[in-house]
Amino acid sequence: MKSVQLSHGGGGEETNTLINDLFYRYFENDILIKAEDAAVLEVKKKIAFTTDSFTVSPIVFNGGDIGKLSIAGTVNDLAMMGARPLYLSSAFMIEEGLSYDTLKQIVESMAKELAKSGAKIVCGDTKVVPRGSLDKIFINTAGIGEIEQEDISVSNLEQGDVIMASRDVGRHGATILMEREGLDISSDLQSDCETLWPAVEGLIKEDIAVHSLRDATRGGLSAVLNEWAQASDICIEVEEDSVGISDQVRGICEMFGFEAMDLANEGTFILAVASEDAEKALQVLRQYHFCENASVIGTVSEKYPSKVVLHSAHGTSRFLDLPKGELLPRIC
Amino acid sequence: MKSVQLSHGGGGEETNTLINDLFYRYFENDILIKAEDAAVLEVKKKIAFTTDSFTVSPIVFNGGDIGKLSIAGTVNDLAMMGARPLYLSSAFMIEEGLSYDTLKQIVESMAKELAKSGAKIVCGDTKVVPRGSLDKIFINTAGIGEIEQEDISVSNLEQGDVIMASRDVGRHGATILMEREGLDISSDLQSDCETLWPAVEGLIKEDIAVHSLRDATRGGLSAVLNEWAQASDICIEVEEDSVGISDQVRGICEMFGFEAMDLANEGTFILAVASEDAEKALQVLRQYHFCENASVIGTVSEKYPSKVVLHSAHGTSRFLDLPKGELLPRIC
Repeated sequence: MKSVQLSHGGGGEETNTLINDLFYRYFENDILIKAEDAAVLEVKKKIAFTTDSFTVSPIVFNGGDIGKLSIAGTVNDLAMMGARPLYLSSAFMIEEGLSYDTLKQIVESMAKELAKSGAKIVCGDTKVVPRGSLDKIFINTAGIGEIEQEDISVSNLEQGDVIMASRDVGRHGATILMEREGLDISSDLQSDCETLWPAVEGLIKEDIAVHSLRDATRGGLSAVLNEWAQASDICIEVEEDSVGISDQVRGICEMFGFEAMDLANEGTFILAVASEDAEKALQVLRQYHFCENASVIGTVSEKYPSKVVLHSAHGTSRFLDLPKGELLPRIC
Repeated sequence: MKSVQLSHGGGGEETNTLINDLFYRYFENDILIKAEDAAVLEVKKKIAFTTDSFTVSPIVFNGGDIGKLSIAGTVNDLAMMGARPLYLSSAFMIEEGLSYDTLKQIVESMAKELAKSGAKIVCGDTKVVPRGSLDKIFINTAGIGEIEQEDISVSNLEQGDVIMASRDVGRHGATILMEREGLDISSDLQSDCETLWPAVEGLIKEDIAVHSLRDATRGGLSAVLNEWAQASDICIEVEEDSVGISDQVRGICEMFGFEAMDLANEGTFILAVASEDAEKALQVLRQYHFCENASVIGTVSEKYPSKVVLHSAHGTSRFLDLPKGELLPRIC
């Protein structure tokens, strides 16, 4: 079986072959083909610039793989700034001996995910390291987007804003945990991994007064809400029962003692919207298959500044804290 | 001794502490401090965009470390496009247990190297992976620069152009090889690792007609010249004796059977300049300490299109081919 060799990363003839056979073939576009030491781009607006490295294990999981994740993750970081994802870099760090077919599958998966936002890979890098220096494959993507709507920020939440979630939470973290533990308890549980730009573009086109947007990745919903409460110095009050958690995610959390709200998501975002636009925002979101269960989960108040309060159906309340410790490494 | 823990990459409280204590402290600038999911930038010209992952082993070597390399490498890719390096992302992939002091040393080294070009780190990412998933630390940097001089390209070489090297070749590769083999034969041999933008800026300011620029990294001088010969469909004739190779590099090459011209450099660049500007270009280059021995090494002719010919002092000639195989993995 063909596999990736050290020579594929040497910068010589074999590297050129790999780049032509795989990267140019699947990522083909005019800018990439013309790129030399760097790609040449023309942008017209303010730009957003972000980076992420992906180290997920296993590299293929129910609902995605490291390739899909590496595109969706960076595209989503741009989208959360109100920026249209345009140009991505992709840097592959590969362990000697990785199957060529696996690499091809990952690259195909990246190309498929790129098509959802229209973003293009315009430059890249390939490193192959000796066996044992790296576990299979890590991918870094950096991204550039043009900002379509300014003033979306963690510090822009206002009293009375409505907090929404685009869907149920905890799927990506629970899926990775299940696969890593070799569990087969719920074969229909799959990662939420998804490119979110189309829904954000929909909100912008409809002139929804979005104050803040954030995909709930590492640290989950808890991390997003705490960051917002602190940055905007407001209180976020959440109705616990309104946060969607699937039965499978709930089961896995009970088994391992995790909080679903702390688990990573890769295609779930949280919105703070002016109250008068809340209903319209929900209507827009529900047009997209990955947001069809979007719902209101809370409101912004002045009760406990910088804090997130969780109200249970039984009438009790508690603070939701920023997650501590490492719940699950190599989740993304 | 304090070390990096999995929780430092978890996206929660410990991640925030690491970012504040180290990254914000050493990389501090207004854009980074304000960055959320992405940094917001304003650019006025065409931009160059590039990425590189750094996996060098050992992570500290004579003349630099992985931090210095991760900045110089990406800044140089921008400089070689005639672009002023402005904004960098930095993504750290760290093995659990890496000493905190080592990480701090690397970050300090990055900050020091950034100052040489004035580029800023404006966004980043931190992943910590379990022991054994990665060897110590890999760093990815992506970079954005504003193009100050257009039409510098691998395909712009013309008949009669003069080919120059900014200094002697093979130092970085030879240094890494020596350190990895535990040799102590030449303690004064050090990597050429250096930020090249100041010299490129000098050439642009003096209106030198630079047709092509390339730092001779993986694949060394041989890779650059072959790429140019093929892309511009011209012949490059090189006088073998005019290519600077230090005695230490020559010794290591003889010991291990390498060609110095195939070895990686990290602060050495090759120029193709219109013949009427050649003398002036040399004068400009020699003002910079890392180019003080810049010299003419060859010319562009039509003798063997797409080929590089090496002429020896004895009157013999041979083709210089693109390096094949993996000479030395984890060189950068």
